[in-house]
Amino acid sequence: MTAWLPGWLRHYRRAWLHGDVVAGVVVTLLLVPQGLAYALVIGLPPVTGLYASLPPLLLYGLIGRSHAQSVGPMALTSLLAAATLSRLAAPGSAEYLALAVWLALLSGAMLVALGVARLGFLADFLSAPVLAAFTAASALLIVLAQLAPLLGLHGGGAALPALLAAVLDGWQGFNPLALGVGALTLLWLVGARRLLPPTLARAAPVLAVLLGIVAVREAGWATRLPVVGAVPAGLPAFALPRLPWERLAELMLPAFFMALINYVQSLSVAQLLAEPRHERVEPDRELLALGVCNLGAGLFGGFPVTGGLSRSLVNAAAGAHSPLASWISAGGIALVLLFAGAALASLPLAVLAATIVVAVYPSIGFGALRQAWRADRADAVAFVLTFVLVLLLGVESGIVAGVLVSLGAWLWRSSRPHMAEVGRLPGTQHYRNVTRFATETLPGVLFLRVDESLYFGNARLVRDTVLDRLAERPQLTTLVLIMSAVNRLDASAVTMLQWLDDSLALRGVTLALAEVKGPVGTVLARAGLLERFAGRHFLSTDQAWRHYAPAPDFHI
Amino acid sequence: MTAWLPGWLRHYRRAWLHGDVVAGVVVTLLLVPQGLAYALVIGLPPVTGLYASLPPLLLYGLIGRSHAQSVGPMALTSLLAAATLSRLAAPGSAEYLALAVWLALLSGAMLVALGVARLGFLADFLSAPVLAAFTAASALLIVLAQLAPLLGLHGGGAALPALLAAVLDGWQGFNPLALGVGALTLLWLVGARRLLPPTLARAAPVLAVLLGIVAVREAGWATRLPVVGAVPAGLPAFALPRLPWERLAELMLPAFFMALINYVQSLSVAQLLAEPRHERVEPDRELLALGVCNLGAGLFGGFPVTGGLSRSLVNAAAGAHSPLASWISAGGIALVLLFAGAALASLPLAVLAATIVVAVYPSIGFGALRQAWRADRADAVAFVLTFVLVLLLGVESGIVAGVLVSLGAWLWRSSRPHMAEVGRLPGTQHYRNVTRFATETLPGVLFLRVDESLYFGNARLVRDTVLDRLAERPQLTTLVLIMSAVNRLDASAVTMLQWLDDSLALRGVTLALAEVKGPVGTVLARAGLLERFAGRHFLSTDQAWRHYAPAPDFHI
Repeated sequence: MTAWLPGWLRHYRRAWLHGDVVAGVVVTLLLVPQGLAYALVIGLPPVTGLYASLPPLLLYGLIGRSHAQSVGPMALTSLLAAATLSRLAAPGSAEYLALAVWLALLSGAMLVALGVARLGFLADFLSAPVLAAFTAASALLIVLAQLAPLLGLHGGGAALPALLAAVLDGWQGFNPLALGVGALTLLWLVGARRLLPPTLARAAPVLAVLLGIVAVREAGWATRLPVVGAVPAGLPAFALPRLPWERLAELMLPAFFMALINYVQSLSVAQLLAEPRHERVEPDRELLALGVCNLGAGLFGGFPVTGGLSRSLVNAAAGAHSPLASWISAGGIALVLLFAGAALASLPLAVLAATIVVAVYPSIGFGALRQAWRADRADAVAFVLTFVLVLLLGVESGIVAGVLVSLGAWLWRSSRPHMAEVGRLPGTQHYRNVTRFATETLPGVLFLRVDESLYFGNARLVRDTVLDRLAERPQLTTLVLIMSAVNRLDASAVTMLQWLDDSLALRGVTLALAEVKGPVGTVLARAGLLERFAGRHFLSTDQAWRHYAPAPDFHI
Repeated sequence: MTAWLPGWLRHYRRAWLHGDVVAGVVVTLLLVPQGLAYALVIGLPPVTGLYASLPPLLLYGLIGRSHAQSVGPMALTSLLAAATLSRLAAPGSAEYLALAVWLALLSGAMLVALGVARLGFLADFLSAPVLAAFTAASALLIVLAQLAPLLGLHGGGAALPALLAAVLDGWQGFNPLALGVGALTLLWLVGARRLLPPTLARAAPVLAVLLGIVAVREAGWATRLPVVGAVPAGLPAFALPRLPWERLAELMLPAFFMALINYVQSLSVAQLLAEPRHERVEPDRELLALGVCNLGAGLFGGFPVTGGLSRSLVNAAAGAHSPLASWISAGGIALVLLFAGAALASLPLAVLAATIVVAVYPSIGFGALRQAWRADRADAVAFVLTFVLVLLLGVESGIVAGVLVSLGAWLWRSSRPHMAEVGRLPGTQHYRNVTRFATETLPGVLFLRVDESLYFGNARLVRDTVLDRLAERPQLTTLVLIMSAVNRLDASAVTMLQWLDDSLALRGVTLALAEVKGPVGTVLARAGLLERFAGRHFLSTDQAWRHYAPAPDFHI
């Protein structure tokens, strides 16, 4: 009878209840200002941020497997949505809102489709440095975008040039009161984080919201600085805004990016949460859960959502043991929507801007760049390029450029393989690079190790390198290609090997193969090359050595 | 004094002269109908084909190194040019001709730039199956495009749907006389190739041209079937047609593709010619030479050119020892331009169409598909996809799709690496896949060989696979990762290894590394991982085996 219930609910333990309730309340207090603020980042009415929060809190627990994952509005996702939507419609228009809903629906549907088709691996092609650069640059853009509300200005933009232009153009509208409220909120939030114990610090944003509302109401500032304005009371209603089909085509590619990036974020949060509990994350299951959350957000008037890192960590730290915590947060959001709408109307936008700055600021970091530089220069280049392009061109072009650069660098490297002449470590059966180790060699025999899979991208270069090495040493009679690092072989590489064998035979040089791996051997066999190399094809380099050694070898 | 002369001219041998003269004359006889015909393939006045032939014949010998390379108009290049130009201007218009000239100039300049920047390796990313499919489908398109002139119809198109539509739409204009002339020419050319000795067969096209001219003149058919029409007499003049700058932008990408494809063709011809002479081809030098040839063709009113396989083979077979043969051909073309213009005016287009069909038909082949299928299924898929898309969408979209599919397949494979548990071949120091060989293993120790370089595309999957293997065997205490096939490591993979080490330590499992290659070791050292793995990092699998073997091992 309870088989359709999620596992965590069927096996719910009484001991979890306390932690789940506390975490549920704490996340509600955090989510109310975040939801309102991230709706503003997209350019939507603040209340839509609460609409977007409710369904995912309820739905994730039905499908997802992470105990403390908190799916909902996120700064980066909102910035990405803003970049897409501001190209397609005027911010604030009914069409803009409809497009936001459809962006959530489409990316949700794509996430479900990717999950069903088990295509989650696509997200692997977003490399860690590219994602880190994307996050850092986006966070910087989000912080800069808060300059306008903090200064009491209007306008904004999706990339650095537009943001700066908005601030410069609107300079006359500078509002000292808004700046004062914003600066005080910033001081309070930063101070609370530094000075208060963590439990109280988590309530700091909601206290700032309450104080802001009280101040505006008591001092009658509602006309003197920008506030949230009228908020419709009541829960979000199920609705599907109409969308002309031709707009759908324009949303497809942005929705796909949105889906991939939200998935990568959500998955990394789930993995971080699973680690201390020794749990495994099923990527395709997470895909499915995130997709359903986005569909839910869209069907109730919300916008794209994802698993938020900081909110999920707060959830876990406050004691969440199961998605019941999120269901309790959903109850909290519902209460706010039912009873606090009128109060929220007086909330100054500068307060929300300050909460965004404090929430997002820690993401502007360059640790990944240092790490990438140490490991792989190409990764560092991809980081810098992604960072700069996200700032200058916006989030979409930036991340596409980053992915292309990292993939291109990887392909480029594979097209210039490392090749090493190896010799025998004296008295052993081991063979190593002659330039790195003290080794012995056989006269007339070159042992060449190819450190790359062979394919169309490097077949010509490998062939030319082999011919160069032979030209340098005309006394050679035998070339042994050591294939221990050749993991795959394509049709172009097969043709190249045949050509090389013919060409070497004309020069009186024997071509032999050693340490051919299973999958590569299969390709060679299908192409008829194993017959051609019969008697010149050795299981190990050592066998080849003993075969071609001029005199009996007593070292073994 | 002669230092500025090309090497072949400074060291010219008397003995080469006879072969060079014969080859020069033979290539002239072949090039006149080809030049006229390939101009028609683009949709240009036939005489431009002779203009495009002259400068490359002279220029290649000054820079290029291949003794028998014949650079000039080529069917495939002309089809590619037609596809680009027909999108940008009306065939036959002055703008169309100007764009053709600029396509040659731009792709020539790009070839020179690629040569100077030593970027010739870019062409390696056109895999052999993609190029073969592209050639086969293009040849089929070219043959089908000759249906219109063979039937005496007008019109054409750059892909299958447009070609079929042109034939169906123009059916009323069917001209039995043109069909008769074309059919007779086809019979003559095929018969000559089969029945005459090779020397005479090479003159068959030019005889067909002469017979066609004589027949049209004697029978007064000039008004009854399409002919070449007025040909301006005289050599091509140096001229640079004006081109509005905004068209330049539209030509950039097509010119780049044109440059890459012409380079690949030309390079493969040069390599084929160099093989029997044991010569090496310098790719960047060939890039430069081909670029200058295209610049020359463009500056004298011609269109894009490349090294033609069949013509170069004829040149070599007829005895060409040096580019002097091409210079003699250039003289022949100049004579035709000076004295035979009036005669060419009467040449029936059906005769040219027949020579195109016979020249191009052998390129429609599926040998490469068979070969690709045997070696690598992904290559076969790339072949079929390229072939179909070239036919349906045209040459440009087809080749771009083919390149993307082949690169994507390669990346996809690298994202799902083969991983093998290995054991020791009894009595040796050799370790092989336990499922392919009879091996012995150590209790509690898993030796896992990763058959791929580690990078962002596969880091997650490798980590998950390792955790899966450990979950299957809870009694394991040690995991040895054998890195002999890991050729490169990026920042994401470094992070993954750190994470895996931490995670395994929590489970009480020791992670060890064996057979780390030099370049990978450098990355590990820079990231501080060599210190972390101190004492768990072995030169060979055998050392790791002996280290973790529970009892002394006497097999060595």
